[in-house]
Amino acid sequence: MIYDLIILGAGPAGLAAAIYAQRANLTCLVMEKEYMSGGQVVNTYEVDNYPGLPGIGGFELGMKFHEHAEQMGASFVNVEARHIGLEDDGKIKVIYTDQEEYRARAVILAMGAAYRKLGVPGEKELSGVGVSYCATCDGAFFRGRKAAVVGGGDVAMEDALFLARVCEKVYVIHRRDSFRAAPILQKKLRECENVEILWNTVVSGIVGNSHLECLKLKSTDTGEEYVLDVEGVFIAVGTVPNTRIAEKLLKLDKDGYIAADETGVTEVPGIFAAGDIRTKQLKQIVTAVADGANAVESVQKYLRSI
Amino acid sequence: MIYDLIILGAGPAGLAAAIYAQRANLTCLVMEKEYMSGGQVVNTYEVDNYPGLPGIGGFELGMKFHEHAEQMGASFVNVEARHIGLEDDGKIKVIYTDQEEYRARAVILAMGAAYRKLGVPGEKELSGVGVSYCATCDGAFFRGRKAAVVGGGDVAMEDALFLARVCEKVYVIHRRDSFRAAPILQKKLRECENVEILWNTVVSGIVGNSHLECLKLKSTDTGEEYVLDVEGVFIAVGTVPNTRIAEKLLKLDKDGYIAADETGVTEVPGIFAAGDIRTKQLKQIVTAVADGANAVESVQKYLRSI
Repeated sequence: MIYDLIILGAGPAGLAAAIYAQRANLTCLVMEKEYMSGGQVVNTYEVDNYPGLPGIGGFELGMKFHEHAEQMGASFVNVEARHIGLEDDGKIKVIYTDQEEYRARAVILAMGAAYRKLGVPGEKELSGVGVSYCATCDGAFFRGRKAAVVGGGDVAMEDALFLARVCEKVYVIHRRDSFRAAPILQKKLRECENVEILWNTVVSGIVGNSHLECLKLKSTDTGEEYVLDVEGVFIAVGTVPNTRIAEKLLKLDKDGYIAADETGVTEVPGIFAAGDIRTKQLKQIVTAVADGANAVESVQKYLRSI
Repeated sequence: MIYDLIILGAGPAGLAAAIYAQRANLTCLVMEKEYMSGGQVVNTYEVDNYPGLPGIGGFELGMKFHEHAEQMGASFVNVEARHIGLEDDGKIKVIYTDQEEYRARAVILAMGAAYRKLGVPGEKELSGVGVSYCATCDGAFFRGRKAAVVGGGDVAMEDALFLARVCEKVYVIHRRDSFRAAPILQKKLRECENVEILWNTVVSGIVGNSHLECLKLKSTDTGEEYVLDVEGVFIAVGTVPNTRIAEKLLKLDKDGYIAADETGVTEVPGIFAAGDIRTKQLKQIVTAVADGANAVESVQKYLRSI
């Protein structure tokens, strides 16, 4: 069988694409490597910025997306794509897995991205209950509290500026003695009275039980270790898109993202990118979902053109 | 008082922007001319493609967006913006109304667009119960039924092609003897066995009580009138963005839309466009909502830069 469309990834972008594809009566298969689909969102404690569903649990929201797609008749297969090939002058896309091969006229890449981890004790355990990787997503939960940001790039500065408006006090923890962020962001940060920068400092541990209690910090100058009392820590040390299987086929930017605008169109006809995997200014559930809808619109235009 | 941000329009784009602005702790005011805010969506019978809320009523969804924004602490004022001015080298934007003036450092234009109407008897009464202006939104409700499309441009062809995959039979009603749509779309349409084109024909009335029963058609050649039995009619005769108050300030495309990509950035620093009002390939609730989030991200970048 040759599908009209194969969707790789079943996070918000992939599931929204599945909903739109079913409504357009395309023959469509959603491929997801994890048994529990839903993407990063299912590991999010609370989501308060998906309009219409304030305060919903991340797991519950991921399941709602999944059920919506299933209700529309979407088909899922629980297997990992290993490689993408082209046949018939590129008209047929082949998805290779460890078992079968799958063929389609169009493919939407919606495998998402992952935040880079610090890799310190407590980070994983307290993720979602004090440890966050996204100030836009979770900053509002720390209104009036003390929080820390780890990192020295643009995103770390933007997170700190966001939190400075919301939190009582914000610490910026950076392992070097200068930031690589844009000078204008650094200037704005220095103007914030409730922001304190801890230079030459790394996080060596994150402490807490059901919620974050404090950070263990270590000076890279003196080796001195000490404790910082905060209720939230925002880790902004980069993201890693899941684009390994696309790297031979598509142009990726320096961080590994697929170069594509909101239409999801890539330089390979019939291959589209949706969600956190593409170059975009704001990676949020709602922008991923919009990408899924847009990519299916582009798929339909492509299928009409061949 | 000078707000950080004024949002014009309280449809999905404006309300999503309000949610994101509140979470970013911006001082923000939402201005809406209608007492009943929520945009076009509140007049939609059923929405089945907003991921996570399958089959929700349009009014209910609009209210959910509104309540979400209120719950986040958003402020609303029920007044119509008449004119936008700039003060202090453009750093301050002034919104003039029939009563007061409002000032902000940034403005998001989210006034939406309206579908052009045929202006025939029954159209308004049966809107949402057989009369639709969006096949992507409502086409799936007519699975296995007979439907008609009115129009001759790209959108009419795309709607007809979408419906041809879903419906038993699709009539395309066009007042002229040729389409202005792209030739590739016309070719695809002619290939559909279940599509019949009614040239030189106009709709003179839409008949039904609680749901659409038939269309009254009239030949522009012979003046002959007759009845066409369909359960749905998709009117694709264009859209009109609500950009009148922006036309002196911003570059509009030939159809009156504000030229802006997904970031919402326009050529006037500090003025952003979100939702159906900007140039985009897919006007849907979910893309409007994503625009609102994106525009607030752009507002924050702008406020940090001044």
